[in-house]
Amino acid sequence: MRIALDAMGGDNAPKEIVAGAIKAVQAFPDIEILLVGDEKQINSYLTDKTRISVLHTEEQILATDEPARAVRRKKDASMVLCANEVKEKRADAFISAGNTGALMATGLFVVGRINGIERPALAPTLPTISGAGFLLLDVGANVDAKPEHLVQYGIMGSIYMEKALGIQNPRVGLLNIGTEEKKGNELTKKTFEELKNAPVNFIGNVEARDLLDGVCDVVVTDGFTGNMVLKTIEGTALSMFKMLKEVMTSSLKTKLAAGMMKPQLKGLKNKLDYSEYGGAALFGLNAPVIKAHGSSDSNAIYNAIRQTRDVVKSEVIGTIKTTIENKG
Amino acid sequence: MRIALDAMGGDNAPKEIVAGAIKAVQAFPDIEILLVGDEKQINSYLTDKTRISVLHTEEQILATDEPARAVRRKKDASMVLCANEVKEKRADAFISAGNTGALMATGLFVVGRINGIERPALAPTLPTISGAGFLLLDVGANVDAKPEHLVQYGIMGSIYMEKALGIQNPRVGLLNIGTEEKKGNELTKKTFEELKNAPVNFIGNVEARDLLDGVCDVVVTDGFTGNMVLKTIEGTALSMFKMLKEVMTSSLKTKLAAGMMKPQLKGLKNKLDYSEYGGAALFGLNAPVIKAHGSSDSNAIYNAIRQTRDVVKSEVIGTIKTTIENKG
Repeated sequence: MRIALDAMGGDNAPKEIVAGAIKAVQAFPDIEILLVGDEKQINSYLTDKTRISVLHTEEQILATDEPARAVRRKKDASMVLCANEVKEKRADAFISAGNTGALMATGLFVVGRINGIERPALAPTLPTISGAGFLLLDVGANVDAKPEHLVQYGIMGSIYMEKALGIQNPRVGLLNIGTEEKKGNELTKKTFEELKNAPVNFIGNVEARDLLDGVCDVVVTDGFTGNMVLKTIEGTALSMFKMLKEVMTSSLKTKLAAGMMKPQLKGLKNKLDYSEYGGAALFGLNAPVIKAHGSSDSNAIYNAIRQTRDVVKSEVIGTIKTTIENKG
Repeated sequence: MRIALDAMGGDNAPKEIVAGAIKAVQAFPDIEILLVGDEKQINSYLTDKTRISVLHTEEQILATDEPARAVRRKKDASMVLCANEVKEKRADAFISAGNTGALMATGLFVVGRINGIERPALAPTLPTISGAGFLLLDVGANVDAKPEHLVQYGIMGSIYMEKALGIQNPRVGLLNIGTEEKKGNELTKKTFEELKNAPVNFIGNVEARDLLDGVCDVVVTDGFTGNMVLKTIEGTALSMFKMLKEVMTSSLKTKLAAGMMKPQLKGLKNKLDYSEYGGAALFGLNAPVIKAHGSSDSNAIYNAIRQTRDVVKSEVIGTIKTTIENKG
């Protein structure tokens, strides 16, 4: 299996990207990695070249670039070259920690949509108290979604959770403002009806306040709402850690107390760190495309590679293709 | 000033409602309170009748009632009688901790909309790290909103923050999935254009992850998204407190440490307790209607009364009327 990795994407590129790649090939003997980016910079960190090769390019897409335009104009950008490798079947999947909008555009224009899938969905796995996590889709690939899109999200998310993560009969929930069937806006009311007849284990509406308790395995919503919920969870957790830190450094006594439970507090922070769960998958394309968090360190990159390997090995994309074809 | 208070609404009625009323009349010599509900039950807690009277009724709307139907059928329910007092000008405002949907229906059908306001909005004040708080509207009065509704939310929220809370030139932000002008779905893109010309201090798009940092004073959004964000903040904060508690009780050492900073941790919890900021106001009606949290204790009821008094005294409703009339 060969995975193309954008060595230039993200805040800590290329150092942490290269380090994550080295860690991953050491852990998984069945993968090869193609690092795409500035050869000189990459080589300065590439201490072990076992099953790692480099494709040189000097062009790259910046975080500040306008996504669609950057993808059209920067034909030699590291991200675009990664997608080309996948398109030309020289790689099975690609990963980037770069510009999210550009990644979605590259996936759509270069790798291409699966026949019958109307809109791809961006799907991160978010933490739950139990540690199992849940898949949230879509978080922003498609901000004006229709009921039929949300049904396809449910099908794709369900296949991923079952095939790649081994969760039997994953519970699919529709994110809504109440659990009763008749609750919601026009979109969720119509989607509810359609999900009842979809080939998934639909458990009904789920509320945002129950997500971290692990109320279901796959949470379906439109890209606007999903993005909002994702950022609200992030923002609230960050603010609480900030306030907690303030509390803990407010006096000598609290500092001492904080020191006494430092490992446990660190454990709590790790539990909420969703880079542990891998990157966000862009489902609905002809091959696996994975978005690693912009601030990924080597460990987050390692986890994204592990996840990508799981998606390729378990033939998630092939199963989505067959399921959508048989449905249509 | 006379405030009608639904003595039977909420999880802790009538005990905590009555206690909150007693506390409020003691604090504010310029208010009278009319408690509406079962006289016998109310009197068993009414240890001080100074400026408090009781309107007896045995009917009440339950949390499980279908809102619109309950309001039509239960003409003598405590909540409906409160609204009648306001409609007949025997009270200046009313407060209930009961069924939210029923409160919105009662407000709309009995108290009535301000001429020119298309949809009322439910607006809680949420906590920020600094303690100043921000107003979020709408959180569910209107789940399929149009740009013109959101503009009116901005105007109403702005008037409330300026008049009742004394915030000069309050900053109004549009909740969106990015801060750039062109970001968002159809609704937010159109609303952005309209807010630029509205009589408010519009500061542009704001992101959910920055809300608790106090990025602005009034956050405008549709009722579906607002409800989602509200419940996500609640759910994330609750889950984190749960995990924190787990961490702190995991060993003798962590228990000891937790004990050492107990007052500070309690302070943190209070900071995030939005009942401190009063209830959620239902703006766009002919008189102030305030929804106290369903789990309100006497302190939350006291804060809701304090807030209602501020709204009446500062003539928020009159100012909204004049502003909307002059605009249209």
